[in-house]
Order: sequence, then C-alpha cells, then structure tokens
Amino acid sequence: MMASPAFRVVILGAGFGGMEAARALRQAPVEVTLVDRHNHHLFQPLLYQVATAALSPGDIAWPIRNIFRHQRNLSVLMAEVAGIDTAARQVRTADGMRLPYDALVVATGATHSYFGHDEWAAFAPGLKTLDDATAIRRRLLIAFEQAELTMSAAERQRLLTFVVIGAGPTGVELAGAMAELARDAMSREFRRIKPEMARIILLEAGDRVLSTFPEDLGETARRSLEAKGVQVLTGRKVTRCDETGVTCGEEHIPASTLVWAAGVVASPAAEWLGVEPGRAGRLQVGPDLSLPGMPEVFAVGDLVQAKDADGTPVPGTAPAAKQMGRFVGRLLAARAAGRTAMAAFRYRHQGELATIGRRSAVVALGRLKLTGLIGWWFWGIAHVYFLVGFRSRVVVSFQWLWSYLTFQRGARLITGPARRKPDAA
Amino acid sequence: MMASPAFRVVILGAGFGGMEAARALRQAPVEVTLVDRHNHHLFQPLLYQVATAALSPGDIAWPIRNIFRHQRNLSVLMAEVAGIDTAARQVRTADGMRLPYDALVVATGATHSYFGHDEWAAFAPGLKTLDDATAIRRRLLIAFEQAELTMSAAERQRLLTFVVIGAGPTGVELAGAMAELARDAMSREFRRIKPEMARIILLEAGDRVLSTFPEDLGETARRSLEAKGVQVLTGRKVTRCDETGVTCGEEHIPASTLVWAAGVVASPAAEWLGVEPGRAGRLQVGPDLSLPGMPEVFAVGDLVQAKDADGTPVPGTAPAAKQMGRFVGRLLAARAAGRTAMAAFRYRHQGELATIGRRSAVVALGRLKLTGLIGWWFWGIAHVYFLVGFRSRVVVSFQWLWSYLTFQRGARLITGPARRKPDAA
Repeated sequence: MMASPAFRVVILGAGFGGMEAARALRQAPVEVTLVDRHNHHLFQPLLYQVATAALSPGDIAWPIRNIFRHQRNLSVLMAEVAGIDTAARQVRTADGMRLPYDALVVATGATHSYFGHDEWAAFAPGLKTLDDATAIRRRLLIAFEQAELTMSAAERQRLLTFVVIGAGPTGVELAGAMAELARDAMSREFRRIKPEMARIILLEAGDRVLSTFPEDLGETARRSLEAKGVQVLTGRKVTRCDETGVTCGEEHIPASTLVWAAGVVASPAAEWLGVEPGRAGRLQVGPDLSLPGMPEVFAVGDLVQAKDADGTPVPGTAPAAKQMGRFVGRLLAARAAGRTAMAAFRYRHQGELATIGRRSAVVALGRLKLTGLIGWWFWGIAHVYFLVGFRSRVVVSFQWLWSYLTFQRGARLITGPARRKPDAA
Repeated sequence: MMASPAFRVVILGAGFGGMEAARALRQAPVEVTLVDRHNHHLFQPLLYQVATAALSPGDIAWPIRNIFRHQRNLSVLMAEVAGIDTAARQVRTADGMRLPYDALVVATGATHSYFGHDEWAAFAPGLKTLDDATAIRRRLLIAFEQAELTMSAAERQRLLTFVVIGAGPTGVELAGAMAELARDAMSREFRRIKPEMARIILLEAGDRVLSTFPEDLGETARRSLEAKGVQVLTGRKVTRCDETGVTCGEEHIPASTLVWAAGVVASPAAEWLGVEPGRAGRLQVGPDLSLPGMPEVFAVGDLVQAKDADGTPVPGTAPAAKQMGRFVGRLLAARAAGRTAMAAFRYRHQGELATIGRRSAVVALGRLKLTGLIGWWFWGIAHVYFLVGFRSRVVVSFQWLWSYLTFQRGARLITGPARRKPDAA
C-alpha cells in the first residue's frame, strides 16, 4: 500500500454520484477509498433492457476497480456498510473493518419503497440491481412457458397478464419493452398460445404518465404505449399485491407478473449517521451538500433531499447525481489543495427523456421537445454515449441494431434459482 | 394446436444431440415435441469463458423455441422429466403432464460425478449450466475482493489459490483462462494484493493432461499451461474437498476456490427407463442407438455408452452427440416416410481441440496436429462457426478481439445470491 497522504476521503457507493466524486478527486493530494457492496458500476437507465431480455448484464455494468485502475490515489473496496461512527470519523463495514475518514461522501442511493407494505416485495419486485433485472426476466419468460403448458383458459390469461406499477420513466420504458417482447420477439414461437395475447398493464396512482415531464409529452407517451397495446390505467392506487395479482380498491387484476416502479426510499444513511431523515428517508443537506452540523460529511445522489441555490428541489436522476458528485469532489479537491471552494451547489437541468420502444421516445430539453423517431434516435445516441468504454458502446449498438432489424432479443435466458411455479412467484 | 400427424416423436433434452435429432426431422411427416428443463440451448464448449468472465451468458445460449420457430412440426416444452412409462409409451413431467410418444429420443446428457462423494459438490462445483458458470465466476471474483480486504498473509494466500480438478479439455481450458484472468485482466487494479500472486493449480489423477489427445499434444498443453504460470500436478487423486481446500492423500492444498472437471455421470435416464445402467450410469444401446428390447426408444449424446459399427467406443463429445442425434433423426424420418433406414450408427472422428489461452491451443485432426498460434486461430474460427446465429458470431468475435487487444474481460460481474464469505463458499 502506498504511503498515506494526509487527507483521507471515503466514498460510499459507486453509482453515478460516487463515481463522479471519485473522478473529480483524481488529481487531488488525497487518499480516496471507494466502497460498494457490488463489484460493478451499473448503468441503471438501461436496466429495464436487461429485464426484458434485450441486453446482457455484462453490456451495462463494469468492474469498479477496472474503471479506476489508472487512478493511483484511489482504492476500491467491495464491502457492505454497517454503520458510521461520526464522532470517531470511521465507517464500519459488515465484515468488521473500520475505515477512518477526514471527509465522507455518502452516495448509497435509493431502493424501492412499498409505502409500508414490504410484504408486497415478494410479489412485485423492483428494478435496482442486475439480480433484480435477471429475476424479472426469469418471471416474464417463465410466465410464457407456463402459459404454453396450461390447459386452463383462465390460468393462461392470468399467466399472460403483466402489470407494471408506476408510470414514471422506468415504468413507461418497462411496459413498452414488455409489449414489444411479447408482440414482436416471441411471435410465432409458441404452438398453443399467441404471445400477442399477453396483456400488459401500466398502473399509475396519479392522473397521468411521466408526471415530471411536460404534460403534452406525457400524453404522447401514453398514446404511444397504447398503440403498442399497453393498457394505461391512471388514478389507480394499489391496495394489495399478492400471488393472485394486484388489487386497486375494488378492482382486482389477476396477473402472474408484477413489477414495482412506483416509489423509492433512500438507503438507511440517515440511520447510520444518526440524523433525522427527511421525506422518503432522504438526507437533508446544506447548500454545499454537507450535513447540518457535520461539515466533513457530504451526501450526493437520490438519497439526498437537496435544494438548488435558487431553492428549486433537485430531482433524483442520474444527471443530478453526477452533478452533485462532481461538485463535492471538486470542493474537496480545492480544500485539499488549500484553494477556496464554491460555496453552494447549483443544479443545471439538462432535460428528461424516456423511450417507449421501437421508433418512439419523448425528450424534453428545456423548450425543445422531441418525439417519435427523432426522439428515439436522440435517446439511443445519448445512452450509448454515456456507457463506459468502447466495448460496451460497440456491443450495445450492435445488439440494438440487430434487434431493430430482426425484431429479436439477444438475451432471452431463464437463469437463476430453481424454476418456480408462477403461482409462487 | 395443429392437427396431429400420426407419428409422435418426443425428444428429451435440447443439447447438441437432441437439437440435431429435431433438425433432422424438419421435413418428416411427424409431430415432434422437444422437452428441456431450460429455455435455452447452451454452447457448452465455451461455458468456461462465462465462468472466467470473458463472455456473457447471452453470448453462448439461445432460446430453444426461437431456434425452431420456423419448424412447424415441432413444439418446445420447458419441463422437467420425472419418469418414463415405457409400457404406456408416455413421458411424465414434474408438472404432472403426460406426453405420449411413438418414438422417444433420450438426449438428457450427463452431469458431474463426484465418485460417490456428493458432499464435495458444495465445495467443488462443476461446470455444466449457465448458473454453474456464473456461480464459479462469482467465487473467483469474490476471492480476489476478499484477498484485498484480509490482513492475514496465510488467508490471503488461501484466498488466491484456485484449484481445477481434472485435466481434460474443460479443466485445461479453465486453468488457462483463470491464469490469464489473474495475470492480465486484473493486474494493476488492486492496491494491497497483486493478482499475479494467484496460484492456479490443475490437479489430475492420471499421469498426463488431455489423456484423450495424442501424447505429444498433451505435453505441449502442459508446457503451455506452465508458461502461463499454472501448476500442473498429475498423479494426484483427490481424497477430500472441503471449505479449507483440497486433499490428495497426505497432501493438503489450502484453497478458496475449487472447480470440479474430473468426472461425469449420465443423467438418470436408466432409472426412468427401468434398465440396467452401464459404466458411469450410461445407457447401453444397440447399433441403431435404440435400447435393447425397446425398438422405439433411442438414446444419443454423452449419456450413451455407444460403440461404433467397428466396435470402437464413441466419445462423450459435442460432435459425437450431434452425429448420433442426426443419425436417429434421419432414421425416424426415413421410417415415417416408409423408407428403409440405415441399420447402424457409424461415428466419424473429426478431431479434438482445446485452447490454453492467448495464442495457444492444441488441435488433433487425424494425423494433422496444430499448436500455438495456428492452433489457436483454428480453435477460434471453429468455435465461432459453430455458434448459433449471426448475432452471437459477431458479438463473440468482437468480445474476443477486444479482449485480445486490451487484455481485459467484458463480463467481470459478481451477481447472484447474497455475497458469501469465501470460507463458506
């Protein structure tokens, strides 16, 4: 191990926020330790494509230590955080290690929130990790296999009903991709069922899809989903998820496969730090993204309830996480170099985009709005551009081109724990 | 479902043998049902590359029903075989289905054999399925992560010791790929350990590696492995595998990761059929690959103990399985068409090949022997050629080219069930 420079920065989480903070420190006279419980950084915006068999896990994830192999002031540790001793300035890991820090950047992100109904998780998994994605892919594909086997028409209809709960960008993209998987990729492959019989339902508690987008783009997305055969049901608050399907008040929808894209809750960082959490467990931070009363502890990404210097709330998106990470990294680099740092984080809103499927996406860039084929090209190029490394860009571009030309999917594999009956899924 | 033609063929297993049998029946006036417990056909010869993070599962596996989508006389069922009622001519599945047949082709392959020590399986997993491969990948990669964390030198050495048991083609390819993963792909990425410290041991009970290859090629492979830093230990019969490592008589090798490539046993087809199994549980078959006393039941692939028309035993390889599958498929097609079929299976030995790693392979094609760079090119082209479909050929070729140029691996992901401590692995 190299000789210790004076200033030790520990970064928890190698998502978009943690990665940018680490990168911004590459020239700084500090010793950085980047801790993550996975060995890979994950490009979450394309995770729904793994869940719907279009891409392989290896296409959208990269070993963290490989990404940082040339950054000599940085060590990567694969470990789970168990707690933070803020008085002693040490992070405790589940393995019993203690990592001392002079500055701490908490970037551990968010996970699904079932609004107090954690028992729904078994029936309506969310989509945050590669394992989540391959588990959802397994459920989806097994449902078709089981539908081909069953002799009961009602059971067949239940097996072929897929419900996505929550019509934010993830929910919209998942529902669109599921519709194309059923209608295009698998058509003509079954003998007893027609995959086109599949019913894909997008449930939303609010009154429209993509509520953070301009209203007309939400409407465009809705029409586009409906054109692909997705049933969009707004104003439906889920009251129960179980092995039979999903219930919204009086309405019960028998379904084999539910996917939860409705809510997130911050990782338990507030608990680790012994501070009062804000809304949805989020950390409350000051203008420089440090915690009140702890000037050496910063938090970035979607576990933060941050306000811009102008007072507008910062959204829980990847670009926002990157901007926050970069801000804190630069601030620490400046301090370590004895320079004065910027005092307040300023969020620059770049836009929002979501794809509905083949030749269809909605993009809002300030006043500029793109839809349809042009939006779709913009979406695709932007996503390939943000992937890590040449290999992923080539492989993802090729897989997409191939899928576009053949209507096929390249990763339609059922893998993982022993095959379960869908009624237990 | 289409109207039933008179003659029903049920094929169990969509490996190389079952697939070829199904394909050979594509023009025949029969109704084929192809049953597999997975939804995908797997290109097993490259499975070790998934285990060593070079390729993704999606690169070497394809949905069976996608492969056969244009073969209208064929249905694919994803189901597990529970038994065979030979009197009633029905296959029973674990789901309680009964599949009646006029002719049955059993092609369910083989699995690892621990020679009566099934308790070793937990410590020394074998490599037969995609889940096996991702589980081995996880163990390998976690061992390096844990070695970076530990403070004990002995524990670090144990964590970085990897033992492959059995020096057939799979064992040789795995050991070579593991050495390159450690020495090339991960070098410079750790701060406390040097991955080059990893010790890779290939254990073999017999007196040489690649015992089915010509002796000089076995010797070439051994030297080539040693040049990559693999320790090749022959004449070592394993007497125990446990959480501390592997024992051969008096000799104990502390190791975190063991992989079993030593022996196979046929799937329980003999039991299903109520016949006496041959060596290693294999089915004994007549010259036309039908079972003695059951002219409507055939068996192909490495669950068969077959003899060529000349009396030479047929090896348990992919080309042999394909040839057997094709023979039975054609025989049944001829019978269904009222033509006379060939009476006896004749095995055509095409050669043997194994790669040791970058620029090194051994190939025996009759009298022609290729080694080194030329052997390696031959091996690579042959394997790309035998992959299914244009997409896989492009993606695998590109991943290989990229790995060749950059020394990197494209699928270095730790995924799957919650991270285990290596001492529990």
